[in-house]
Amino acid sequence: MKLIRYGQPGQEKPGVLLHDQRYDVSAFGQDYTEEFFATDGLTRLAAFVQSHEGQLPQVADSERLGPPIARPSKILCIGLNYADHAKETGATPPAEPVLFMKSTTAYVGPNDDIIIPKNSVKTDWEVELAVVIGKRASYVEEADAEQYIAGYVLHNDVSEREFQLERSGTWDKGKGCDTFAPVGPFLATPDELGDVDNLRLWLTVNGQMMQDGTTANLIFKIPFLVSYLSQFMTLLPGDIISTGTPAGVGLGFKPPVYLKPGDVVELGIDGLGTSRQVVKAYAAH
Amino acid sequence: MKLIRYGQPGQEKPGVLLHDQRYDVSAFGQDYTEEFFATDGLTRLAAFVQSHEGQLPQVADSERLGPPIARPSKILCIGLNYADHAKETGATPPAEPVLFMKSTTAYVGPNDDIIIPKNSVKTDWEVELAVVIGKRASYVEEADAEQYIAGYVLHNDVSEREFQLERSGTWDKGKGCDTFAPVGPFLATPDELGDVDNLRLWLTVNGQMMQDGTTANLIFKIPFLVSYLSQFMTLLPGDIISTGTPAGVGLGFKPPVYLKPGDVVELGIDGLGTSRQVVKAYAAH
Repeated sequence: MKLIRYGQPGQEKPGVLLHDQRYDVSAFGQDYTEEFFATDGLTRLAAFVQSHEGQLPQVADSERLGPPIARPSKILCIGLNYADHAKETGATPPAEPVLFMKSTTAYVGPNDDIIIPKNSVKTDWEVELAVVIGKRASYVEEADAEQYIAGYVLHNDVSEREFQLERSGTWDKGKGCDTFAPVGPFLATPDELGDVDNLRLWLTVNGQMMQDGTTANLIFKIPFLVSYLSQFMTLLPGDIISTGTPAGVGLGFKPPVYLKPGDVVELGIDGLGTSRQVVKAYAAH
Repeated sequence: MKLIRYGQPGQEKPGVLLHDQRYDVSAFGQDYTEEFFATDGLTRLAAFVQSHEGQLPQVADSERLGPPIARPSKILCIGLNYADHAKETGATPPAEPVLFMKSTTAYVGPNDDIIIPKNSVKTDWEVELAVVIGKRASYVEEADAEQYIAGYVLHNDVSEREFQLERSGTWDKGKGCDTFAPVGPFLATPDELGDVDNLRLWLTVNGQMMQDGTTANLIFKIPFLVSYLSQFMTLLPGDIISTGTPAGVGLGFKPPVYLKPGDVVELGIDGLGTSRQVVKAYAAH
């Protein structure tokens, strides 16, 4: 199944993608929230879609897409999880996964604008494969981890490098700015995606290929990450784990290259669709 | 006003403290959520309490207290914000506030148990004054910051020092373990508290005074912190900002001293009440 949410920010309705066509499932009666996943919503939704085949209202392609699940309780991110990216940033590949968190106020739709924060000069891109947790996970074994995964999404882990690295403290300051987590276009359940360890992921800026990697190069694989993180905190249904970015971010260029107003970022992962963000300067409302 | 929530975990009902007596305000019809604060809930609640004076059901002192507001969208924490604490950890007082985040799954009631995570040997305590945000805050000026504060709470920023400092990456890994954020007993609105820059805060372990400080020694004051953080991300109503801990944590002893099962931690801040946690080992359910 492929889940979407569409409509104006904060008022998104649930939908599904069937054969690349968008359908509304408001009649299902539940948004894709923590509660939805915790109560076996994916199974219930699949039954609903099957029983309403041919009767679901179509959704116009012109409708805005929101993020494909409701605002999660947390967005966990893994840093330096591709050896080539660790190298380009001057870091040694870590002995254990590097964890940081992204404020959920950063969470936006796949094609929403990226707003460069006030006083930012180093806003950067990072295409990432992200996991959506399907059920409450605490001290999960690696062998059981896949049972806790609801699906996968495309994520641009937008990052302000000065805020992240030069402003005291942990990375969180440069990772959670508003609009810094475009997610989607859709959540794909694991059966839709096949082998998650062999997906191409790429990102362009103004049409120029910047990142072109494969999840085959993940240092720490997804079942290990789910198990590992669940040793430190309980993962809730709907929580997002972003698994890291391959080489080709702006910070890695010599000299570094950062986003500026008017730039267009496009990214994609095999089987998870593509997203497109226009970069804008912050403007007071 | 002093807000409480009482009842079993996940099923808490809203209440208020009046002259140290607990009263149920379920009839008000709304929990203390993001929506509550965003829709001027404090003003509406004050009117409700006034119009129901003498008619509110009392709540027994034996009832469990939950955290005094519903699970927030985020818990932001400031590190090394007292010079004496920075010194005891071997750190230089930072040029700017150090930010880290706590998973909201850590969030528990003021007198709930602290569970030492599996494989933890360095679980530590930190008494902190925490701020609750009252309305959406983005790029707020320091002079206006107080308008964005709903109130204050007592917080034990429980921390696993090995997870935080020795396991790769940012501090978040050692800060968000389940039960690591006991908050309460109550939220006090600013008018209840007087001068927040001159509050004694203390913490004992098994009756022995470990931390005994004053918010007069905060390096970065609260209006500055609210303004500062709002430059990096939008603060939502109900979000919690914990402002740092004074000297006397377990990590600062030579050799360090950490919590073990059976220990009793008690803490308090002038005007914000006291809390008490019993430390237990993790046991699979």
